[in-house]
Amino acid sequence: MNTDKIKAFFIHDEFAHQNGIRLTDVSEGYARTEVIIEPRHLNAGGGVQGGVLFTLADLAFAAATNSHGTLTVTTSANITFVHGATGGVIIAEARETVNHRRLPFCEVRITDADGNLLALFSASGYRKEGVQLPF
Amino acid sequence: MNTDKIKAFFIHDEFAHQNGIRLTDVSEGYARTEVIIEPRHLNAGGGVQGGVLFTLADLAFAAATNSHGTLTVTTSANITFVHGATGGVIIAEARETVNHRRLPFCEVRITDADGNLLALFSASGYRKEGVQLPF
Amino acid sequence: MNTDKIKAFFIHDEFAHQNGIRLTDVSEGYARTEVIIEPRHLNAGGGVQGGVLFTLADLAFAAATNSHGTLTVTTSANITFVHGATGGVIIAEARETVNHRRLPFCEVRITDADGNLLALFSASGYRKEGVQLPF
Amino acid sequence: MNTDKIKAFFIHDEFAHQNGIRLTDVSEGYARTEVIIEPRHLNAGGGVQGGVLFTLADLAFAAATNSHGTLTVTTSANITFVHGATGGVIIAEARETVNHRRLPFCEVRITDADGNLLALFSASGYRKEGVQLPF
Repeated sequence: MNTDKIKAFFIHDEFAHQNGIRLTDVSEGYARTEVIIEPRHLNAGGGVQGGVLFTLADLAFAAATNSHGTLTVTTSANITFVHGATGGVIIAEARETVNHRRLPFCEVRITDADGNLLALFSASGYRKEGVQLPF
Repeated sequence: MNTDKIKAFFIHDEFAHQNGIRLTDVSEGYARTEVIIEPRHLNAGGGVQGGVLFTLADLAFAAATNSHGTLTVTTSANITFVHGATGGVIIAEARETVNHRRLPFCEVRITDADGNLLALFSASGYRKEGVQLPF
Repeated sequence: MNTDKIKAFFIHDEFAHQNGIRLTDVSEGYARTEVIIEPRHLNAGGGVQGGVLFTLADLAFAAATNSHGTLTVTTSANITFVHGATGGVIIAEARETVNHRRLPFCEVRITDADGNLLALFSASGYRKEGVQLPF
Repeated sequence: MNTDKIKAFFIHDEFAHQNGIRLTDVSEGYARTEVIIEPRHLNAGGGVQGGVLFTLADLAFAAATNSHGTLTVTTSANITFVHGATGGVIIAEARETVNHRRLPFCEVRITDADGNLLALFSASGYRKEGVQLPF
């Protein structure tokens, strides 16, 4: 595993990148992403849109589960919203609970800069044996 | 319920709007959204980022569940990805299965222009009695 | 597919069987289960225990997704409780939304005898290619 | 909170009780349940039926979230199966991640006696303000 190469790979996640969502750390089975909330991230009620938190968590999931080098896709995900947010920095930390050969599972905690829990995300992946990533 | 007023309200969902996600139809307990896929919607693997489908579905959920005029927020959501997509138009249709006074539930089907199922989304909401929306 | 053989196979689901949960119908990608509520099915609050509804739905899921003859196991499931129940007959109907070679998805509706929705269940499975069932 | 009174209350969960599922520990926002697997807990494939694990987790969820004394019901739950089990003791530990006045959230880990992870369960509840439990 090469952290710089993983970061370089995921910078090509255009949807995350163009929305200011950045992968800040990655190691085997772990990743951390963050976003600085701007007006473009809000919903019609003035809170952070759920899709921002989902995308933030999904990028962390993708980096953590792909860190082993075999292509892994999200098959299903759950997100529970705990507290609303309207600004500041939002952080997602993904930990791969189950590093299964085919069906990994990963939990992601989404917090503000003070560590207050905003949302919980968990997802199952499908690992495509034989499809190696360039890192 | 006034369809034009609901559409006008949700155009202020900045995250959806700035990412090209549009609310095309809404009626009591129903909504339809769509997005035309562009390079900015893709992930590092070249497929449509899961967050795009989530945001598309979440906007449809929000419009359908808020169509009755009482503020409803998403509490938890599940999304299952069935087939990958790389381009074209993607459509989400939300139907409020349970129009409960406090705890509504809504199912959303995400398809391509030919009606092929791409993902299934379902979410629970929390209705804030006494908080009326301007439509 | 042989309906009688599938029913005969699933009668060996001891947990369902000993708790009065029966598979009443099955066809390709579809199954129906039911249970007649007795005092042994209740929780400490006097309502039907969530595990009864889960087991009822999971048996329907298992029959529907295994109806093609290849062993399919549940990987993850979601259940949302809509209305409480305290007695009568409860029915689950499973429809396999996605008959995928490896990763099927199935939705189950749980109702009372009058068709009132009590709970919604959906689950992802994993199909073990090459493991054929005896029907 | 009175641990003995909570245990005495939940022994009236007939479905759990009659299936050998026991509440072994409870404190504020925490509970532990266990079951010794017998032939009656198996599915048609000879593994522990998913409904056993669900019921085990749901009882732990109920005890943990009701430990504060206000009636809390499960609104939706997710369970992900990690490893199959065929015998031995199975344990569920529930920790209430979010002790919200109305919408608590609780995570449950299901393991064997050696601590190997078998399944992950998480659920949202709805707390009925004003409905006090007898402990």
